[in-house]
Amino acid sequence: MSIKKILITGGAGFIGTNLTKFYLEKGIDVIIVDNFSTGKFSNLPKSNNLQVIEHDLINSLPARLFRDVDMVMHFSANADIRHGMVDSMKDIEQNIIVTEKVMNSAVKAGCKDFIFASSAAVFGEPNVFPTPENIFIPRQTSLYGMSKLAGEGILSAYAENYGIRASAIRFVSIVGDYYAHGHVIDFYNKLLEDPYKLEILGDGQQRKSYLHINDMMNALDKVVNYQIQQEENHFEIYNFGNSEYCKVTDSANVIISEMNLDPEITYTGGKRGWVGDSPFVHLDTSKIINLGWKSEIKVLDALRLTIRWLINANKKF
Amino acid sequence: MSIKKILITGGAGFIGTNLTKFYLEKGIDVIIVDNFSTGKFSNLPKSNNLQVIEHDLINSLPARLFRDVDMVMHFSANADIRHGMVDSMKDIEQNIIVTEKVMNSAVKAGCKDFIFASSAAVFGEPNVFPTPENIFIPRQTSLYGMSKLAGEGILSAYAENYGIRASAIRFVSIVGDYYAHGHVIDFYNKLLEDPYKLEILGDGQQRKSYLHINDMMNALDKVVNYQIQQEENHFEIYNFGNSEYCKVTDSANVIISEMNLDPEITYTGGKRGWVGDSPFVHLDTSKIINLGWKSEIKVLDALRLTIRWLINANKKF
Repeated sequence: MSIKKILITGGAGFIGTNLTKFYLEKGIDVIIVDNFSTGKFSNLPKSNNLQVIEHDLINSLPARLFRDVDMVMHFSANADIRHGMVDSMKDIEQNIIVTEKVMNSAVKAGCKDFIFASSAAVFGEPNVFPTPENIFIPRQTSLYGMSKLAGEGILSAYAENYGIRASAIRFVSIVGDYYAHGHVIDFYNKLLEDPYKLEILGDGQQRKSYLHINDMMNALDKVVNYQIQQEENHFEIYNFGNSEYCKVTDSANVIISEMNLDPEITYTGGKRGWVGDSPFVHLDTSKIINLGWKSEIKVLDALRLTIRWLINANKKF
Repeated sequence: MSIKKILITGGAGFIGTNLTKFYLEKGIDVIIVDNFSTGKFSNLPKSNNLQVIEHDLINSLPARLFRDVDMVMHFSANADIRHGMVDSMKDIEQNIIVTEKVMNSAVKAGCKDFIFASSAAVFGEPNVFPTPENIFIPRQTSLYGMSKLAGEGILSAYAENYGIRASAIRFVSIVGDYYAHGHVIDFYNKLLEDPYKLEILGDGQQRKSYLHINDMMNALDKVVNYQIQQEENHFEIYNFGNSEYCKVTDSANVIISEMNLDPEITYTGGKRGWVGDSPFVHLDTSKIINLGWKSEIKVLDALRLTIRWLINANKKF
């Protein structure tokens, strides 16, 4: 089986835009469904093989949209982990209900292959590092993590009940071109506003394992190629992350250096930037490595490239 | 700390009714919140220490209800595992959204202690028997299992973010007085309708581990007493089940014998009664046993007592 047409939800977001470009370049037709609440139309490539649909996925998708669609990549989500306890229905609506609605419409329309954007946040605060996919998760630390674990459960229940094939990707913070959400951009924006000081949430000793979007695209392609060769009723979970990690202070220093600044750095203190922040994220990626993947961009280089892209993008607009 | 007042959601259902009686007999005040969609008012005891509120929990609960409430036992749920894929929003609404709403209202009103009715269904089809709490769950086989795992995640995220104490109970099929849902009553009702034949879904070789409600009450009391002695930010998961199991055919034979019938038995065939049915349920209950619990009623006796109660209850009405 080969893939000719992909439907990407959240296709105008950071990862979605990269997915769209990646698959268009491979000669695959792409349909994007996005409500443009955070996604940007201007980031999308112009192509006759790209169809863009503005639609809020809280409303079901019409069956005709899935005609000839070989694979659905569900990347639309609320990505704001930090404020999940404040607006507590947001994760349930955007990450659970929408996932159920997308799966329901697509499966009923006959789609057989699915990729789901889960998250390393489903691990809460694990006690095994690097963290493999197949560990007991003692507790969730955020409603976001809970909602992504529920999303995985929806896909696996559909695999069991309808014989579809699905893979859920638990990824660390992804950085790179079109990066738009997370603490790297928070630092960048704070420094644009006031170049003389930078407040870091927590003690700065939190260890994070950023992965560059280009490495992620290659990993995802391995998963896709593996999945479409499998029998029906297939559900697998994959960790995507860098083999290295760095401290939040290290990432701040890369940003400062790329921006040619010398701000005074202050810390709010505590092991976590906020309740639900993970003091240490480092995934065991043996499973995706066994599919033939290899990360090419080191963790601080991934940050450096991202800051350069942000500086360059800001110059343009 | 001692418990003086408990709020039980779904308090008019099978387990809720038993909980209500159990705690009233201990001299504890009980508030029941139930929408009476399946719960029965007539089953509830008359007591000056019992307050019954008819309310659909999809609408938030007013803060005044939680005044002086020491513990919330959240047992309201959609319990229909089998039809979850047909009406796929039901599990999300009744088991996820309602859980989030109950937790949100109760925590904001100052409640500190919670018990959550999870389910052995969260294990999907595990590959370890007896199944302990702390295993990797490779996949969900039902939206019901997914929704209960999400419910656990909501409680643990609240424990982490608000310092509450919570325990989630993953229980097998519970039987006993006021039993009202599941395949034991399905068999009973089929035989009332036609005493000459009984159709069993699957091959009848599915192994199930029923626990009697009286054993469950004692186990829950151990959890409650342990939990209220702990520091804040406490989240634990407990398996509740019988140390024994029996085949579905064995349970059918007990029912037939108690009803003094001799029907022709037919099987629909296959390892599972339906997609999402677990061919084998047997939980490792070491964790609750370590809190001092011991099951007193053997699996076939639990069924026998339940059928006797059903026959007796039917005689009365």
